[in-house]
Amino acid sequence: MQTLLKEIRHNPLLWLLVVVPIVLVAEKAVPEAHTFLFVLAVLAIVPLAALLSHATEAVAAKTGDAVGGLLNATLGNLTELIIAVTALHAGQHMLVKASIAGAIVTNALFMLGACLLLGGLRYHVQEYNRAGGRLYSALLLMATVALLAPSAVADLDLAHGAVLTQKLSTGLAALLIIAYGLGLVFSLHTHKEFFASDEHGEAEAHWPIGLAVGMLLVVTVLVALVSEIFVESVQKAAETFGMSPAFVGFIIVSIVGAAAEMAVAFSAARRNRLDMSVSIALGSASQIALFVAPVLVLLSYVVGPTPMNLQFWPGAVTMVMISAVMATFITNSGRSAWFIGVLLVFVYAIFAMTLYVIPPAAQGPG
Amino acid sequence: MQTLLKEIRHNPLLWLLVVVPIVLVAEKAVPEAHTFLFVLAVLAIVPLAALLSHATEAVAAKTGDAVGGLLNATLGNLTELIIAVTALHAGQHMLVKASIAGAIVTNALFMLGACLLLGGLRYHVQEYNRAGGRLYSALLLMATVALLAPSAVADLDLAHGAVLTQKLSTGLAALLIIAYGLGLVFSLHTHKEFFASDEHGEAEAHWPIGLAVGMLLVVTVLVALVSEIFVESVQKAAETFGMSPAFVGFIIVSIVGAAAEMAVAFSAARRNRLDMSVSIALGSASQIALFVAPVLVLLSYVVGPTPMNLQFWPGAVTMVMISAVMATFITNSGRSAWFIGVLLVFVYAIFAMTLYVIPPAAQGPG
Amino acid sequence: MQTLLKEIRHNPLLWLLVVVPIVLVAEKAVPEAHTFLFVLAVLAIVPLAALLSHATEAVAAKTGDAVGGLLNATLGNLTELIIAVTALHAGQHMLVKASIAGAIVTNALFMLGACLLLGGLRYHVQEYNRAGGRLYSALLLMATVALLAPSAVADLDLAHGAVLTQKLSTGLAALLIIAYGLGLVFSLHTHKEFFASDEHGEAEAHWPIGLAVGMLLVVTVLVALVSEIFVESVQKAAETFGMSPAFVGFIIVSIVGAAAEMAVAFSAARRNRLDMSVSIALGSASQIALFVAPVLVLLSYVVGPTPMNLQFWPGAVTMVMISAVMATFITNSGRSAWFIGVLLVFVYAIFAMTLYVIPPAAQGPG
Repeated sequence: MQTLLKEIRHNPLLWLLVVVPIVLVAEKAVPEAHTFLFVLAVLAIVPLAALLSHATEAVAAKTGDAVGGLLNATLGNLTELIIAVTALHAGQHMLVKASIAGAIVTNALFMLGACLLLGGLRYHVQEYNRAGGRLYSALLLMATVALLAPSAVADLDLAHGAVLTQKLSTGLAALLIIAYGLGLVFSLHTHKEFFASDEHGEAEAHWPIGLAVGMLLVVTVLVALVSEIFVESVQKAAETFGMSPAFVGFIIVSIVGAAAEMAVAFSAARRNRLDMSVSIALGSASQIALFVAPVLVLLSYVVGPTPMNLQFWPGAVTMVMISAVMATFITNSGRSAWFIGVLLVFVYAIFAMTLYVIPPAAQGPG
Repeated sequence: MQTLLKEIRHNPLLWLLVVVPIVLVAEKAVPEAHTFLFVLAVLAIVPLAALLSHATEAVAAKTGDAVGGLLNATLGNLTELIIAVTALHAGQHMLVKASIAGAIVTNALFMLGACLLLGGLRYHVQEYNRAGGRLYSALLLMATVALLAPSAVADLDLAHGAVLTQKLSTGLAALLIIAYGLGLVFSLHTHKEFFASDEHGEAEAHWPIGLAVGMLLVVTVLVALVSEIFVESVQKAAETFGMSPAFVGFIIVSIVGAAAEMAVAFSAARRNRLDMSVSIALGSASQIALFVAPVLVLLSYVVGPTPMNLQFWPGAVTMVMISAVMATFITNSGRSAWFIGVLLVFVYAIFAMTLYVIPPAAQGPG
Repeated sequence: MQTLLKEIRHNPLLWLLVVVPIVLVAEKAVPEAHTFLFVLAVLAIVPLAALLSHATEAVAAKTGDAVGGLLNATLGNLTELIIAVTALHAGQHMLVKASIAGAIVTNALFMLGACLLLGGLRYHVQEYNRAGGRLYSALLLMATVALLAPSAVADLDLAHGAVLTQKLSTGLAALLIIAYGLGLVFSLHTHKEFFASDEHGEAEAHWPIGLAVGMLLVVTVLVALVSEIFVESVQKAAETFGMSPAFVGFIIVSIVGAAAEMAVAFSAARRNRLDMSVSIALGSASQIALFVAPVLVLLSYVVGPTPMNLQFWPGAVTMVMISAVMATFITNSGRSAWFIGVLLVFVYAIFAMTLYVIPPAAQGPG
């Protein structure tokens, strides 16, 4: 507990934890104040996500390289997963899909771009081990092809289109999870020497295992509770702000879900450790595409009112594909300067601007 | 003849030659047993294709580097060409186009991926001369653009659309053949030093020229006869197996047509000679796109009931384009490990799965 | 004046200046001879463009590196800009857009490809500093995404689609101009050492500043006058030649507008200075995409009868995207041989052929 309090004292982000009880109480007190609840929920998720990723890392550190890497790789996007499961349970497939596509695009363009920009503003040229970036962007490209397929089938306008799309989505989900597993075997086991960062240094004082596991459980429950408020209020709040649901799902939800990771990735970039920044950004993007998205499809048979497929709005597939191709080009050289970051952030801005002008009624099937 | 018998004794694949007379007799005896004939035809084509490519190589070896390279380059996909001409003669443009697109995708994704995977399972990291891979994937990209154009024009829904598409296809076919020819001048003449493999070693005992030329003629006739049975039975057999014609044309026909080459490419990969594997896989893919496909368009004016155009089903163009881009990315580094192979094979699996679920009535214009 | 006359005597291209007064007189004398006026206007624009770029360079040389680079970068496509403003003033948005997309494609494929081919026919392998090529092709990729967005929004078939597309286009135009400005800061200021060519040599005798500025003003006015004749006659002339307006806007206008730059780029390639050729070709393409196009959108509020948006015909966006991706792949290696040039020119030929067969009535919204 001492460790936790010390942690909180040193990390201003965690001060936002005070909002967690407030939002839980407010939900009972003023259930109709959607915009207010939405803002509180956003503020509460950010520090919880930070705690969650910290707890995951602590557990991972105690369990040794292989299991630890696996834990990090599967629980790394736990916040996004919990938010999405809550939305799935509420039958909001469109919000789930928008947040999946949005998280991929936000991580691959905005988080990566901002890292390269922030690092580049301090260092003239940054070199980094590009193995991680290449693996993750290749995985991302593969996953994009899998997201393209159901849309292509749906386009054919078949008699039993919906059934076929669902069948295909389930098969693709299994395929993606297998590919993700093999990718872990490759990067954590058979070829791990390629993915080693130059040095790791600064042995952080990790939490004791008991605290870590306890935190993992408690915070997961809290994130789930707050996510429910978030999912319930997001639609109404968007209307109040005059934003399209597409914009909210793609941009707002994604940035909120990834806020904690972004803090870590940005700080690594400022310390000239771009290996780590690139791995966090693109690793997270590929994890969402190859693990979170297919797991949600499979989970939808259990938790949702109706099963969810992998058929995305063509615009979303295009954005994901452009992000994957840009990430592949960018990480191909292993060198970076500030303008590379600007380019990625600008492409993200083009997407955000486009989603912003689309009116509420027209964001397609997700 | 002695040489041939020795060859057959050492190569179990060639034992399948016994099926050739069986299928020819069976076609007269039980012309209605489509599924049975289809299976026999597939089994007969595989060893014939092996003999054909062996004979081509033997003739090429005797005629010196330049002419030999040219022969190899033009007759390398003779099996695919014969099958396609047979289908063209039967007016089955859809089957021809599916087998063209399928052969490109199968060679660029499945054959290349399986080579990298098989090689990677034996060697930790494999390095190879990437010049061949880069040339072939660049040619493939160019050809993909040419396949895109007629679909784009057809999309415009013009008054005389069919006439324009045909005119454009004929022009593009001429352009592709010229590009293919210039590519041969580049790789076999002006810049051949870039495409030299490290060593060739193991001087194989090639057949004498008389045997080789004789074989080339005899086997070509046999392949043509078996292809006719294959093309006649494939549609009905597909219905029996519950497979869509798109799946059959794309996947089954392509794998059958390329079986012999695959055996050679896989064996090269296992002997750490990835140069050769990459050249066979991508060379074959680009040859089909830049030589076989346009030749078929031009031939269709002579052998077909109606001329064939280059307008492919948009899904097929997308698959070919994704294959070309993936091949370009992959061969860009000149290094490989097993997971790269897995990625390519998985993308192929995504395509196969998608084609499999499409019902018989909806595979578009080819 | 002496300098100018000497220049004219040594540069046969400038002899065409004699056509300038002829076309201005002819327009008054035979205003209905559209085809005749069109041919004269084309012949007159070529030497004027050469003078314009020469004057710009001379002014740039006198004003020092930073301001000079900026001048060159903003006035480098002055001819294209003047032609486009004239067409904008006439309300011919379709012609403006076709010439924008066409100029990008012509510079990135035809000019670059012809440089690599011409250089490659003289030198076996050419090496060049790829920094410029990579920056410009990355900028081009970003701009392509911006051109894609309004088409995607327009596809949604919204109630107030046109208003939204206009709003989005204006926002994107601002974004592109900012990105272009930051690109200049990067390449001319913070990281200029990466973009330095090996040597510059041959100190050309530049015009005195007075002559240069005078020329800039006089020639700009002349280009504007001739452009007006060109824009008025091009439509009718196209009909006479049996060419579609899409072909004329894309191919003819682009080649005319870039003729002067092409002469410089080709000559640099023949002197083994591919750095310069690549920078001219791709620099010009990215300048049109990131500076000329958005400036025209903003100017359309002032000079045009109605504001212009950035919504291009999907086929045009596809061509621009393919050009940007090809340029990215090609300039990635920093080495070239003649066949690379052939590939780019062939892709351009595929586009030209496709545009040529599209009949006059069907070229979409521009």
